[in-house]
Amino acid sequence: MTDCLQGIAASNGIAIAKAFLLEQPELDIQKEIVSDVETEILQLKEAIAKAKKELEMLRDKTREQQGDENAEIFSAHLLVLEDPELIDAVTAKVKENSVSASHALHEVSSMYIQMFEDMDNAYMRERAADIKDVSQRVLLHLAGVENTSLASINEETIVLSHDLTPSDTAQLDRQFTLGFVTNIGGRTSHSAIMARSLEIPAVVGTKDITSQVQNGDLIIVDGSTGDVIINPDEDSIQTYRERQRQIEAEKEEQKKLVNEPSISADGYQVELAANIGTPDDMEGVIENGAEGVGLYRTEFLYMGRDSVPEEEEQFEAYRTVVENMDGKPVVIRTLDIGGDKELPYLDLPEELNPFLGFRAIRLCLEKTDLFRTQLRALLRASHYGNLKIMFPMVATLEELRNAKALVQEEKERLKEEGKPVNDELEIGIMVEIPSTAVAAPQFAKEVDFFSIGTNDLVQYTLAADRMSEHVSHLYQPYHPAVLQLIKNVIDASHAEGKWTGMCGEMAGERTAIPLLLGLGLDEFSMSATSVLAARSTLREIQLNTAQDLASRALTCSTSEEVETMVRNHL
Amino acid sequence: MTDCLQGIAASNGIAIAKAFLLEQPELDIQKEIVSDVETEILQLKEAIAKAKKELEMLRDKTREQQGDENAEIFSAHLLVLEDPELIDAVTAKVKENSVSASHALHEVSSMYIQMFEDMDNAYMRERAADIKDVSQRVLLHLAGVENTSLASINEETIVLSHDLTPSDTAQLDRQFTLGFVTNIGGRTSHSAIMARSLEIPAVVGTKDITSQVQNGDLIIVDGSTGDVIINPDEDSIQTYRERQRQIEAEKEEQKKLVNEPSISADGYQVELAANIGTPDDMEGVIENGAEGVGLYRTEFLYMGRDSVPEEEEQFEAYRTVVENMDGKPVVIRTLDIGGDKELPYLDLPEELNPFLGFRAIRLCLEKTDLFRTQLRALLRASHYGNLKIMFPMVATLEELRNAKALVQEEKERLKEEGKPVNDELEIGIMVEIPSTAVAAPQFAKEVDFFSIGTNDLVQYTLAADRMSEHVSHLYQPYHPAVLQLIKNVIDASHAEGKWTGMCGEMAGERTAIPLLLGLGLDEFSMSATSVLAARSTLREIQLNTAQDLASRALTCSTSEEVETMVRNHL
Repeated sequence: MTDCLQGIAASNGIAIAKAFLLEQPELDIQKEIVSDVETEILQLKEAIAKAKKELEMLRDKTREQQGDENAEIFSAHLLVLEDPELIDAVTAKVKENSVSASHALHEVSSMYIQMFEDMDNAYMRERAADIKDVSQRVLLHLAGVENTSLASINEETIVLSHDLTPSDTAQLDRQFTLGFVTNIGGRTSHSAIMARSLEIPAVVGTKDITSQVQNGDLIIVDGSTGDVIINPDEDSIQTYRERQRQIEAEKEEQKKLVNEPSISADGYQVELAANIGTPDDMEGVIENGAEGVGLYRTEFLYMGRDSVPEEEEQFEAYRTVVENMDGKPVVIRTLDIGGDKELPYLDLPEELNPFLGFRAIRLCLEKTDLFRTQLRALLRASHYGNLKIMFPMVATLEELRNAKALVQEEKERLKEEGKPVNDELEIGIMVEIPSTAVAAPQFAKEVDFFSIGTNDLVQYTLAADRMSEHVSHLYQPYHPAVLQLIKNVIDASHAEGKWTGMCGEMAGERTAIPLLLGLGLDEFSMSATSVLAARSTLREIQLNTAQDLASRALTCSTSEEVETMVRNHL
Repeated sequence: MTDCLQGIAASNGIAIAKAFLLEQPELDIQKEIVSDVETEILQLKEAIAKAKKELEMLRDKTREQQGDENAEIFSAHLLVLEDPELIDAVTAKVKENSVSASHALHEVSSMYIQMFEDMDNAYMRERAADIKDVSQRVLLHLAGVENTSLASINEETIVLSHDLTPSDTAQLDRQFTLGFVTNIGGRTSHSAIMARSLEIPAVVGTKDITSQVQNGDLIIVDGSTGDVIINPDEDSIQTYRERQRQIEAEKEEQKKLVNEPSISADGYQVELAANIGTPDDMEGVIENGAEGVGLYRTEFLYMGRDSVPEEEEQFEAYRTVVENMDGKPVVIRTLDIGGDKELPYLDLPEELNPFLGFRAIRLCLEKTDLFRTQLRALLRASHYGNLKIMFPMVATLEELRNAKALVQEEKERLKEEGKPVNDELEIGIMVEIPSTAVAAPQFAKEVDFFSIGTNDLVQYTLAADRMSEHVSHLYQPYHPAVLQLIKNVIDASHAEGKWTGMCGEMAGERTAIPLLLGLGLDEFSMSATSVLAARSTLREIQLNTAQDLASRALTCSTSEEVETMVRNHL
């Protein structure tokens, strides 16, 4: 019988294949009294050693296939396995209570998981997921059960599961995994982000796909609409196959655009750039024909380590990127830490509302040693290409002026040291706080460029945490107020002869591109894999049609009205 | 030797008197093994009974002198004393370990305090303060030490302390306590709020006043500037006495304005209204000549109880207020719970960023039973006076439309039941989210009025938690962007023939009044005790001067520039 389910569209594309229900092997861990405590401890050590090997392998494989950023999770898991506090507690429990290693590990890890899950802090809650993932891995080794379910897939399937852990996604074989569907998660959950980065069609948050489907059922996943069809009839299969072919054809067509200019149907030119996290991402940038890097997030340099990266290490990373881009613009954002992103070695205060708290430029202007080191590395790298510095989370002109003063000081110091610095280097800011969007005319006089960060701007403008499921309906990038603020920023920059880019998710969305073009956006920065589709969308639109759409959108009452209007036009 | 200290100006006015160092009696609680466990438990029970009596007395005295809201804290303390979990744990500890009741109570309460202090949730952290306060009270009784320090004051003094607990402020005798100064705290800390409500000059956050001053030192406190002068010379004393006389004279002068109209120097009329929390606050509203209630916070009806208040109880409260105002406008805000304000019986979700989460109208539109009960009570009360309904935290037009639809449904139901309802009743919204301020032209078509809630609007516009000390420098009501948003709201309402009020702290500030007048604000709502001073300020300003100041403020670069400009003018 055909059945339809509606979930959250997480990663575009259509997949048609048999269902593969991914279930975690159930381990029934009973309290077991053992006589030979030493053997238990030995087995525990062996299981840990095997788990370590596995993790190292996964890390290396992921790094190779998906880059540093995605491999990061396995380094975190290795840290858990190397945590003496955890391991000592388990061996102590085995010795003191003469219980099996499995039971002791299960008890200890459950306690830690519970503790971290109870915390209000997202970073800490993620640690709970890490510990769960790692201890499950060790428990499987202890039980002698091989966790080969994902690796065993050898035909084209659609993977269905309650959720996908980082370990799961790292093991997905892209050759056979055509798509996936989960019960839980949202557009910003780990599984959704991974799906987009792997370019696998995905629908998340269906609530109960795993209980509606049998292994081997035929499934259609439409990752652009969130539709999942179970055991479709022949007509549906034909319709979706046709759509699939269309999409494939479009993709092939888009590939031809890699060296074409980013122009509207009537020849108005903008810049299509890519967002990156590490120098390794440069390959994708160049392959997809991005005309620049619109956002280089420098956080990854600071993560998964014990101390602040030195100037030299940072300099090398920044120089690699600007040299690779060969004269094309590279906008590097200074450290944006705090909020949901923490660095253990910085000892940041716990806050009631971290998104409204001590983060990014607020933190850098206080921890100036940390900030100066990064500025020096950036200034030195500016000699090797078209580097631009961008400050995140600027809310007041005082902050901009203070940050610029530090740049100036370090510039002069470097010159005294005889180190070359590009004197023409542009300095801009992220516009992601409403005050800055509203006061853009004042800011425009003192920056070289703006880059609108819609992820945060939307969240603050609507006072709706983008990570909270309770208010996700209020996270509306197409709210007329958000569009009005975007217009205000663009107009203010143009009035001063400056330019405005955008580096939030929105910049790559098909619905947004005509509106942003119409509002006058100069640079669109998105994930590298979206660049060609964006170029194709752009080339379909006439500038004056876009302008007309944009000005009508500004007078709409609701986000829904705006979206419907644009969709009807496209 | 004369010494000067600078703290945070917490409550206006000047006080000159001898220092009284308030020190918590130090209790040295050692682990003591007792032989007679039963006697210990009996003593514990007696100490708890005494503490209860004291707390009941404090609650009744505070309720009488300062109203329900301030008395609330003692009801919370009584609940702690009646918590069987706490008391049972203490008696169990006495029995099991044969230790003194003091030691057992100290151990158990320390554990609870630590547990609550470690939580990220402000509500829970406040519970830590409550438990500390209550257990200290019981420990003093157990030790036979009388905590009479504050009650013993019988001459005019300035109280200096590390911090003032709610119990402390409730015991301050206003006749003798001319002012106070604390080491810690900010403008929004409990002690600062109490000082303003008691109209006692106060400076908080001086860091170390208690170590700089000896009992009996002469002290000058300037609560408007944050200056504290220790052992001033004769000249300073004369200067401050003169200022003090001036302020007194101004206050006397202002009292004459109680029945005067709220007009600018050239006769332009606005409305000066008061914010209230309970019907008991009406006395102050009338005494201070407020021309309406601009904000009736209905949360207190829902607090300090086990279940939702019934329609009848709410109806009586609302009717009392509108009848008391005798035809003058009363704007009643529907339930604004969530964020930093929780109701135990509602079982709200824990959130990472409660200020960006599930609260106020967002919650009411989901828990419609709760909401409909309040709407019915409001609609019924509307028959008895000039009642207006106001929805908090509206971010989208959908929310407004949904809320209005519920009002309409309940209105019709009441009519069917034959209950009278005012058909002309105005419905408005708080403007406290940037999206609503920006899209005010769209909203203005569908509301009868706006009321700008600056406390939240400033917080969201600058993405700076108003409770976080780490970003308090970014909480800037005079940021040109905030002023621009205020202007946008006022202009939008006027274009549709509607009116705009303001019910945040800002509406009563001397620096803000000229700007708000110049921007065209129609209604200023503030704490009742600020109304006469505001009327006096208003009567000094010419409308066109105010308009000129406002338009210059909009082009300023920073908050500081705006404030300096206005201060130079005044």
